Amino acid sequence: MKKNTLLLTLLILSTTVFAQTKPQETEYYNPQPAKVIPGDYSYTTAPSDAIILFDGKDISAWESQDGKEPQWNVKNGELLVQPGTGSIKTKQYFGDVQLHIEYKSPDPEKYSGQNRGNSGVFFQSKYEIQILDMDNNKTYVNGMAGSVYKQNPPLADAYTKNGEWQVYDIIWKSPVFGTNGKLEKPAMITVLFNGIVVQNNFILEGTTEYIGFPKYEAHGRLPLMLQDHGTSVAFRNIWVRELN
Amino acid sequence: MKKNTLLLTLLILSTTVFAQTKPQETEYYNPQPAKVIPGDYSYTTAPSDAIILFDGKDISAWESQDGKEPQWNVKNGELLVQPGTGSIKTKQYFGDVQLHIEYKSPDPEKYSGQNRGNSGVFFQSKYEIQILDMDNNKTYVNGMAGSVYKQNPPLADAYTKNGEWQVYDIIWKSPVFGTNGKLEKPAMITVLFNGIVVQNNFILEGTTEYIGFPKYEAHGRLPLMLQDHGTSVAFRNIWVRELN
Amino acid sequence: MKKNTLLLTLLILSTTVFAQTKPQETEYYNPQPAKVIPGDYSYTTAPSDAIILFDGKDISAWESQDGKEPQWNVKNGELLVQPGTGSIKTKQYFGDVQLHIEYKSPDPEKYSGQNRGNSGVFFQSKYEIQILDMDNNKTYVNGMAGSVYKQNPPLADAYTKNGEWQVYDIIWKSPVFGTNGKLEKPAMITVLFNGIVVQNNFILEGTTEYIGFPKYEAHGRLPLMLQDHGTSVAFRNIWVRELN
Amino acid sequence: MKKNTLLLTLLILSTTVFAQTKPQETEYYNPQPAKVIPGDYSYTTAPSDAIILFDGKDISAWESQDGKEPQWNVKNGELLVQPGTGSIKTKQYFGDVQLHIEYKSPDPEKYSGQNRGNSGVFFQSKYEIQILDMDNNKTYVNGMAGSVYKQNPPLADAYTKNGEWQVYDIIWKSPVFGTNGKLEKPAMITVLFNGIVVQNNFILEGTTEYIGFPKYEAHGRLPLMLQDHGTSVAFRNIWVRELN
Repeated sequence: MKKNTLLLTLLILSTTVFAQTKPQETEYYNPQPAKVIPGDYSYTTAPSDAIILFDGKDISAWESQDGKEPQWNVKNGELLVQPGTGSIKTKQYFGDVQLHIEYKSPDPEKYSGQNRGNSGVFFQSKYEIQILDMDNNKTYVNGMAGSVYKQNPPLADAYTKNGEWQVYDIIWKSPVFGTNGKLEKPAMITVLFNGIVVQNNFILEGTTEYIGFPKYEAHGRLPLMLQDHGTSVAFRNIWVRELN
Repeated sequence: MKKNTLLLTLLILSTTVFAQTKPQETEYYNPQPAKVIPGDYSYTTAPSDAIILFDGKDISAWESQDGKEPQWNVKNGELLVQPGTGSIKTKQYFGDVQLHIEYKSPDPEKYSGQNRGNSGVFFQSKYEIQILDMDNNKTYVNGMAGSVYKQNPPLADAYTKNGEWQVYDIIWKSPVFGTNGKLEKPAMITVLFNGIVVQNNFILEGTTEYIGFPKYEAHGRLPLMLQDHGTSVAFRNIWVRELN
Repeated sequence: MKKNTLLLTLLILSTTVFAQTKPQETEYYNPQPAKVIPGDYSYTTAPSDAIILFDGKDISAWESQDGKEPQWNVKNGELLVQPGTGSIKTKQYFGDVQLHIEYKSPDPEKYSGQNRGNSGVFFQSKYEIQILDMDNNKTYVNGMAGSVYKQNPPLADAYTKNGEWQVYDIIWKSPVFGTNGKLEKPAMITVLFNGIVVQNNFILEGTTEYIGFPKYEAHGRLPLMLQDHGTSVAFRNIWVRELN
Repeated sequence: MKKNTLLLTLLILSTTVFAQTKPQETEYYNPQPAKVIPGDYSYTTAPSDAIILFDGKDISAWESQDGKEPQWNVKNGELLVQPGTGSIKTKQYFGDVQLHIEYKSPDPEKYSGQNRGNSGVFFQSKYEIQILDMDNNKTYVNGMAGSVYKQNPPLADAYTKNGEWQVYDIIWKSPVFGTNGKLEKPAMITVLFNGIVVQNNFILEGTTEYIGFPKYEAHGRLPLMLQDHGTSVAFRNIWVRELN
């Protein structure tokens, strides 16, 4: 009997070991996206049909991972990641959306690479557009700001400076699952970063995975998530327009 | 032995938890179907080849889920859902049919959204056309009256007022299963709601699921079902023409 | 030079001869659709979003084939085919529609087969749903009232009596042509005849041809046409809802 | 000889007449895109890698259809269509681009429908995004501002008021032609109109045709064109970023 248990345990472990790959396996460095200085771009009020997720004061649209009051702070009209308190997600579930969100990396900066001003916007809690301080900060290209994290680097590096607001305008098409949850249409994303197209209807391979490869598992509408990656990032002007 | 059992149990549980999704995942809100006021439409007698399922008096065509006398009431020529007594189904099994059915939502109304005047017609006990009071009542579009529940919103909102009879004329094509029960042709449905086309040969993804995704599992002719969703709804003039 | 002309003429003639087939080639007689006596069905007013094509008085929505005043008559709220004056068409162009139209065959009747009370509704001027007096009148099944003329017989014979109004409720999906006018999606039709489904999303092979086979040639929205087939037919309550 | 010529001419003429279709065939009216009031959106300077096509003064990037000095006017920093002088095109040839362009419809307005403030941006001189005054101005939906003209209506009606600047941010992917000019990938377009997504990677059927159907004929990089449709329209802030 114990043998049997052991066998099972080994089977499970070996499967795990077999599947255990390193994060570096999915981190690419070339070619480098060209540096572009964006134009003077601003979008201060939301469209009439937008759902306001953060207006500078109210965070009632959000909750913590376990459905409680989020522990992030609001100060001077900014929503601040409170490192270590966990990611936050919208109470509302979303499918296809147009999202507007602005972020600001801390100045003075600390750390480098993926440890500096790292956060992320997760569509449907599963698919990440990277948020990072790119100011004099080298990292793998598919981990840059504007990347579909670990899937596709940005078409250009449109980040300005830390301490300045960075603007995302994103069009998200959910993956479509049909009979028995079979994938019928993959997720697709178009991203303007500071007004510069950095993803042009990129077709996602699946969910964002830190280690290993993207996959698709059937799901429906899910919350939008903002990541706590253990570093400070500020947000403002967050709204979505539902497209379905 | 116990350990083994425990391990297995844990494995199964974790899988279950992982697969647990919320009903909100499959509820959509945009775009809103246009409001249409139907014409003066009536259909008082059944065609010569119709099977009368309810003529205002006789409910002998129906039985409860466990094959007993149904506990719904007949009053003033109306078949009334008796909330809490369970859904009812026809004794006869059906495949492809043309169905005529009329329903009336309670007036004065109680509750809102999916809790107001909710019932459903289930073709082959598995595929639901939603019945709901839509009078000043917002809900997710794929949960509106005239929707293939959680699959497709109606092409127009043709509901009139609560307290008035709403008329469904529905053409149902059963899914076709072949060798080893493999799906050969999906189910299809055309729905006129108060004389307005609201589903135009919509191809179903599978069974109606409150949580999760539609699926196809081989089956043959099955009873037509009327749902007890815990709210009052009245029915009259129920007949089907068998198309196969 | 003359030889050359002759040659061309012969070529053209021979092509014509080669293509010349007889109408009987596309006329089928079995199986006979079952006779159904429709229920008491009426639809006296139009939905709020309908375009009224004939309200009992006004025929300004119509014109003759060459764009002139139509020579059909209006009498006692009925639009009457004036045999020999030609078919009439709507001034407006239509794509996908839900059409409601009622017709009455002359009583006492004259002639038999396709010569009795023959007319037709042509969607996009090209695809015909047959109009015929079926009262004790045998003809080829794909030429019966309720047929997609010369393509598909009705699922049932739901005609009542001549001198009585016959009611069509039809859902029409236009063929879709894409790049270079290539067919991307064929036309489809669902027909209720006196409330009885007689065409259930039938997929058309192409245009209605009296002689020869259906074909698809790229076109867009086109007028709805009512045929003058040389026999008297009366119409009333004609309206369409645009579905695109 | 003459007879032969005549015959041939007749043959050609009859074919032409047969193929002659009307513009109405490709004009759709339903469903209406929802009205959205855009947020306060501005983009006053161009990105560092942009090619400036109009900066408020200089029109040296443009020429007339026959390669001469364009006869459009520049006044108060605006580039003004000079009706009747013809469309203008860039001297430079473009493939995939991100285009920014702003237009203003005349106030007070004149005329209605397609005759009011009509112009267009033609990518590669062949594929049009419609420019129109939509202020209280009904037209066919696939001819609205934000439409891929005669192919796809906008997802929303994001026009503000005439006399106000309307902002287009457009991502254009050229069609790809391979061996012998065969189409390998169709053209695709994403359009933000006043910051509202109105085309989400729409796949074009081919060139923009006023009458008849879109087609693909092999071509390479071509000038960007601004249409003279006979009505006044003002432009400013025109720049492109080359994406290939």
